[in-house]
Amino acid sequence: MFITFEGIDLSGKSTQIRLLKEHFESEKKKVIAVREPGGTVISEKIRDILLDKEHLKMEDLTEFLLFSASRQQLTKEIILPHLKKNYIVLCDRYYDSSTAYQGYGGKVDLKVIKSINKTATGNLIPDITFLIHISIEESIRRKKLMNKNEDRIERKTISYFNKVTDGYLKIAKNDKGRFVVIDGTMSKDEIRNRIILSVNKFHQKIKK
Amino acid sequence: MFITFEGIDLSGKSTQIRLLKEHFESEKKKVIAVREPGGTVISEKIRDILLDKEHLKMEDLTEFLLFSASRQQLTKEIILPHLKKNYIVLCDRYYDSSTAYQGYGGKVDLKVIKSINKTATGNLIPDITFLIHISIEESIRRKKLMNKNEDRIERKTISYFNKVTDGYLKIAKNDKGRFVVIDGTMSKDEIRNRIILSVNKFHQKIKK
Repeated sequence: MFITFEGIDLSGKSTQIRLLKEHFESEKKKVIAVREPGGTVISEKIRDILLDKEHLKMEDLTEFLLFSASRQQLTKEIILPHLKKNYIVLCDRYYDSSTAYQGYGGKVDLKVIKSINKTATGNLIPDITFLIHISIEESIRRKKLMNKNEDRIERKTISYFNKVTDGYLKIAKNDKGRFVVIDGTMSKDEIRNRIILSVNKFHQKIKK
Repeated sequence: MFITFEGIDLSGKSTQIRLLKEHFESEKKKVIAVREPGGTVISEKIRDILLDKEHLKMEDLTEFLLFSASRQQLTKEIILPHLKKNYIVLCDRYYDSSTAYQGYGGKVDLKVIKSINKTATGNLIPDITFLIHISIEESIRRKKLMNKNEDRIERKTISYFNKVTDGYLKIAKNDKGRFVVIDGTMSKDEIRNRIILSVNKFHQKIKK
C-alpha cells in the first residue's frame, strides 16, 4: 500500500506520518516513511539545491524539473522496490505537491505538470492521499511559535501560498476516490484517528 | 544567432567554440559562450550532481530531468536575454545531447525526450548545430593521451557510447536544415574553416 501526505508547511504532515508509522509497526506490519524532495543520496542533493535561500533566480519550471528528477530517483530506487516487497510506503509529499506548488502556485502549465508527473513516477498512483488542510495564516502563526528558519520555497509570498492551498483543494475535489481532506486545525489525536479510520476503510474495500 | 555544438567528449567542441568566439570577436560582434550542463549558479550545482562519480545509482530518466532543469535555467537566465540583446550565443551541448545520450544511449523514450526538450527550452531551436563526429575509439585514444580523469557519464560502457554516436548521426540526418556534421579527425584549422564557412552561408541565406 502506498500512502502520500500533502499540505503546506506546518500542516502537521510529518507528525501524522510518524503516528501512522507507529500504528502500523504496532500491528507488526512492514512500513517505511520517505520524504520529498529527498529520500535517496541523489535526491537529497537535489533537495539542497531546491531549498537553498541563495537561489532566488530559480525559475518555476526549473524547480518543477528538479522536483521531478528527485521524485523519479526516489520512486525507482526506494518506493517501487519496497512496494514489491509488500511494504507499506508512507511518503511526505509526492506529485500532487508539484501540481499545487509549481502548477497552481507557480503557473507552470498544468498539462505539462500532469504529463511529466506521469513520466517521472512511471504512473505510480498512491492508494490514498491525505491532504491536511490549513490556511497560510495558520501556517505563519505556527511558524512564529516555533521560531523556524524559512527555506527558499517557504519565503514565497502569501498570495503564492493562497494559490497553493486553493490548488490543493481543487486537486482533491477532482480525485475524490483517492483523496481524504482533513481539517488540520483539529487536534493531533483527532487527525490520527481520522487517518487510521480511512486506512481501515480502504483495507475493507480492497478485501471485498 | 544561436549556435550549438554537439559530439562526444574530446571531439574538440570546446576548442572550436573558443576559435569561433575569437573569430566573431575579431569582427567586433557581441558574442558569449556557455556550456551545458551548467552556465548559471543553479545549473553548475546541478552539473556537480550529474557528474559526481559516486552517483552510480542515478536512473537515466533522473539524469535527463536534471539536464532539463539545468537547461531550462540556462535558457531563461542567460541564452534568451542575450539573444534579445542581439548577442551571438555559442552553446557547448544543448537538447540534442539529451536525445543522443539519455535517449539513444540510455533508452529513455524518445517521445518523452522530445516533449520535455521542447518544454524545458520554450521551444528555442538553434539556428545552426555543429555535430563534430568522432568514434568512441578515437575519444578513448585522445583521453589516454591527455591522462584525463573520467566523470560519472564518461565511465559508461563502450556499447553505450556507440549508441550515442549512432544516435547523433540519426538526429543530424533527420534535421539536415539545422545540422552540419563535421569529421572530427580533421585538423583543428580545417574544422574551424568549415565552421566559419557554414556560419557565413547561414548569414547569406537569412539576408536573402
